[in-house]
Amino acid sequence: MSLAQLPEKREKLRPVDRLPEIAEPGFRLASLALHPERTVVTVGRGPGAVEIGASRVALVAGPCAVESWEQLRSTARAVKAAGARLLRGGAFKPRTSPYAFQGLGEDGLRLLARAREETGLPVVTEVTSPELVPLVAEYADCLQVGARNMQNYELLRAVAKAGRPVLLKRSLAGTLEELLLAAEYVLAGGNPDVVLCERGIRTHERATRNTLDLSAVPALRELTHLPVIVDPSHATGRRSLVPSMALAAVAAGADGVMIEVHPDPERALSDGAQSLAPADLPALVTRLGAVAAAIGRSL
Amino acid sequence: MSLAQLPEKREKLRPVDRLPEIAEPGFRLASLALHPERTVVTVGRGPGAVEIGASRVALVAGPCAVESWEQLRSTARAVKAAGARLLRGGAFKPRTSPYAFQGLGEDGLRLLARAREETGLPVVTEVTSPELVPLVAEYADCLQVGARNMQNYELLRAVAKAGRPVLLKRSLAGTLEELLLAAEYVLAGGNPDVVLCERGIRTHERATRNTLDLSAVPALRELTHLPVIVDPSHATGRRSLVPSMALAAVAAGADGVMIEVHPDPERALSDGAQSLAPADLPALVTRLGAVAAAIGRSL
Amino acid sequence: MSLAQLPEKREKLRPVDRLPEIAEPGFRLASLALHPERTVVTVGRGPGAVEIGASRVALVAGPCAVESWEQLRSTARAVKAAGARLLRGGAFKPRTSPYAFQGLGEDGLRLLARAREETGLPVVTEVTSPELVPLVAEYADCLQVGARNMQNYELLRAVAKAGRPVLLKRSLAGTLEELLLAAEYVLAGGNPDVVLCERGIRTHERATRNTLDLSAVPALRELTHLPVIVDPSHATGRRSLVPSMALAAVAAGADGVMIEVHPDPERALSDGAQSLAPADLPALVTRLGAVAAAIGRSL
Amino acid sequence: MSLAQLPEKREKLRPVDRLPEIAEPGFRLASLALHPERTVVTVGRGPGAVEIGASRVALVAGPCAVESWEQLRSTARAVKAAGARLLRGGAFKPRTSPYAFQGLGEDGLRLLARAREETGLPVVTEVTSPELVPLVAEYADCLQVGARNMQNYELLRAVAKAGRPVLLKRSLAGTLEELLLAAEYVLAGGNPDVVLCERGIRTHERATRNTLDLSAVPALRELTHLPVIVDPSHATGRRSLVPSMALAAVAAGADGVMIEVHPDPERALSDGAQSLAPADLPALVTRLGAVAAAIGRSL
Repeated sequence: MSLAQLPEKREKLRPVDRLPEIAEPGFRLASLALHPERTVVTVGRGPGAVEIGASRVALVAGPCAVESWEQLRSTARAVKAAGARLLRGGAFKPRTSPYAFQGLGEDGLRLLARAREETGLPVVTEVTSPELVPLVAEYADCLQVGARNMQNYELLRAVAKAGRPVLLKRSLAGTLEELLLAAEYVLAGGNPDVVLCERGIRTHERATRNTLDLSAVPALRELTHLPVIVDPSHATGRRSLVPSMALAAVAAGADGVMIEVHPDPERALSDGAQSLAPADLPALVTRLGAVAAAIGRSL
Repeated sequence: MSLAQLPEKREKLRPVDRLPEIAEPGFRLASLALHPERTVVTVGRGPGAVEIGASRVALVAGPCAVESWEQLRSTARAVKAAGARLLRGGAFKPRTSPYAFQGLGEDGLRLLARAREETGLPVVTEVTSPELVPLVAEYADCLQVGARNMQNYELLRAVAKAGRPVLLKRSLAGTLEELLLAAEYVLAGGNPDVVLCERGIRTHERATRNTLDLSAVPALRELTHLPVIVDPSHATGRRSLVPSMALAAVAAGADGVMIEVHPDPERALSDGAQSLAPADLPALVTRLGAVAAAIGRSL
Repeated sequence: MSLAQLPEKREKLRPVDRLPEIAEPGFRLASLALHPERTVVTVGRGPGAVEIGASRVALVAGPCAVESWEQLRSTARAVKAAGARLLRGGAFKPRTSPYAFQGLGEDGLRLLARAREETGLPVVTEVTSPELVPLVAEYADCLQVGARNMQNYELLRAVAKAGRPVLLKRSLAGTLEELLLAAEYVLAGGNPDVVLCERGIRTHERATRNTLDLSAVPALRELTHLPVIVDPSHATGRRSLVPSMALAAVAAGADGVMIEVHPDPERALSDGAQSLAPADLPALVTRLGAVAAAIGRSL
Repeated sequence: MSLAQLPEKREKLRPVDRLPEIAEPGFRLASLALHPERTVVTVGRGPGAVEIGASRVALVAGPCAVESWEQLRSTARAVKAAGARLLRGGAFKPRTSPYAFQGLGEDGLRLLARAREETGLPVVTEVTSPELVPLVAEYADCLQVGARNMQNYELLRAVAKAGRPVLLKRSLAGTLEELLLAAEYVLAGGNPDVVLCERGIRTHERATRNTLDLSAVPALRELTHLPVIVDPSHATGRRSLVPSMALAAVAAGADGVMIEVHPDPERALSDGAQSLAPADLPALVTRLGAVAAAIGRSL
């Protein structure tokens, strides 16, 4: 082997990281070209059920982590009052450090179910392992696959069998193509109810926690029939930027926005810096509705 | 020197690329904290003068490159009719390849001035070298410093002396801090009229030409009193994504949007893939106005 | 809530994505400052056992995926003959597309064990799910956690209990701090034998599959006592670049290099474009040994 | 225009940022395929002239900025004694902040020329503006175009006419293709003596100032006949990482390494954190020579 050995065609730089087997089969089931009817995913049952992907934009809100019944109840009531239609809250929390608060686990799931009973809001919560899927599916209306697990294929195969809609978050380094191929794992596993979520990618910019890639919304809508929502809280990491980016997300055509709300953000056990207080919601919701109307939708 | 030599503090990773001398003086003149009154930059004179940074959102439109009088005139008329208040067009074009069309140069400047006479629209055009600043300033109402030249400090010093407002574009790898420090060169050189422009940063995502960092809009508004506009054409590189991102930019709080328009995008000498046709404008402008109204502004 | 609401300190851009709870506890167990003795991880038992982190640089080689006994045996023999001391090969393959070859599963593990018997080379192979850990640990000498799973914390907790050394790959968007915190999950779970692996991060550059961040090698050696190896095959994605980057890795101080080898790269079921042929190895190994000697180590 | 308007082919994500006119003409003059003989660039005249691109690896060393005659003389003597063959030093310094030290200007050039007289080392220094090219060319043996100016095409056109070799640094967001097209501006302008320099790209990783993309060395050698050197000082931003990465650069096949040296790094007016002290050089040079020998070259 010679170190000076040269490829046959030298002049043209060829992108090499799209392997042939990816390009070939592609995201058949997720493809808008092959399935031109847009998917509407229904989360929850009965009168509180929420449609994601229809004309009405869905507001998903709640705490990053479920910390206590008091915290969850007050947040759930506040977001319901403000117009949220889906409650988010983490019971199993993937944390960068093993020494950080890891969530209340099944206790957290029970509190979420109780909050649903009280408020009528369906519940979305993260699942972090194939083994936990049945347990989480027992309590939750929608299973979230977090950004760190977008390419955890065993987990994708497991949620495909869970009988619940899946909220699939884009990973920090994920391309749109990879996000759609991850969705394809769920679709191919038999679950047609996948909601995609743009929540910021990792770039060189440090003024925000991540870089919200809002162009992903119209770009995904050209590629897939699946609904797309946006999480401006994790994307920006800064409370003061969340309202502007939530408005921008709706203007860009997102089917929903997911916002972290905590009754006392300064004391939150995780992600307090990016959580809105309940008092911030009503003014934001009014504007979200106005922007939705401006592009022919509603909130 | 030992290769195993270790720094004194090993455990904590310290970010190293913010040099002390940058952190110290910072962007004094651009700082909102030090100068809490927001700057309104006036481009042009007389009845057609445009204020950027006031309540009304500015629509800037025109071809990527000036190609001919026919092309420029038809575009200028169309964008004026649709509601644009500032005409953009490149006469000196920085191109990645030395063999690509480099612009009409001074001839292009003359055509821009002629289009201003016919339509009343003030003109913004790029200047690529300190030597060219006096020439371009003779014809143009606003001097654009392009993304490739954001840290071309000799050019920044030259436009500071040009007696014209400056439209400063963020570079592909530029942080917000670096953008503000680049603006500081112009301000410190004696020119208070700087408009910042977010036009997409370079990331791993390849579905769009660049990644439009819309969070930069509210983040910059917290840091600086200078107005901020958004260029969704260069950011996305794809015509079909431009309208959504223009709407999102207004919703995010941008003081203006800059959109490439070409009478025949398929035959454009540069950036045709991202140019709208004149016929695309009216519907977009209607929506832009509605979104502006939704957040308490106007177009 | 006002959209114009401003943070108290506006002028200085603060990096926001290092949450306080991460900075606080940090990677206590992985820290070189707190544990100044470098860890040597022993893989395998008996005469073929390999020490990673000692003076001798470890060559790890083998196919991306185990495809058949014939393919594995010929590769294992060739890499053994060339001087490799550890055999790599994937039985459970995480693939971006659900329609791509996913590996032979337990059959692949059996073939790896058989190759170990024939060649005496200990075996490293990837595990992709907590449930699979006991099975893979039954066959393999070292468990690999792939880049996509670096922050799959349930998997990290499971391999911490597996009684096998762990080869932990950095994710595409992972920082060194996050890599060390992922290692901390394994250490804190009771497993002290962790080998870190730099395998390329995702950047804007498209001439290579990923961007090999070789500075990570000396940077990690300042931060942690854990050994660090480099995978130039996945990093570059191009066969012709692998030898140069393997040499560079050794020069940079890596404790090992992991190289993909396939008896017939053009027909490989995965990653053929980045696999060396067995005939490429001897010349490379000679040079690797010479570079190791140049910095006072051996191969 | 409908916001829902879809492109004709929806399923395949097409990379859009390689414009047709770039792909077409490409880097004709820089291409190895079209010009298979490798270029050797000679810097300086007479007995001290240095060949870059031949078998011998060039060590370029000196201070980031020329600060005083005393500082420059002591550094120049030390690097000459240690084996450097080319002296670097900045007289015109592009600085992120307008308030940072901007270099001594023409006085700095005079000091560089004096240091050349005393030591016999040819001199490379940065030029930041087309207007300054004749002045800098009067004093310097090689003109550096810095990373911020890689796509400052007016500057590239000017150095093409300067009658001096050009050291062209890759920009923070530059691709290899763009670097080669920037070189093509110089070649097409009539100057065949271009040396390319990899000095780190900007990525998400914050443990180093930039990310040294060493794979660029073998990748460029496949694409172009121009020599390639590496600057580990700017790439890592950390003194303790420079030696390892210099060794790795030579192992990767670089035709030279450029290292910042300052007699008193703690008091340097710029980039002290990444400068080696003169006492660090001899041990490093010994190892660089050994690594060069290991791959069949010399220092």
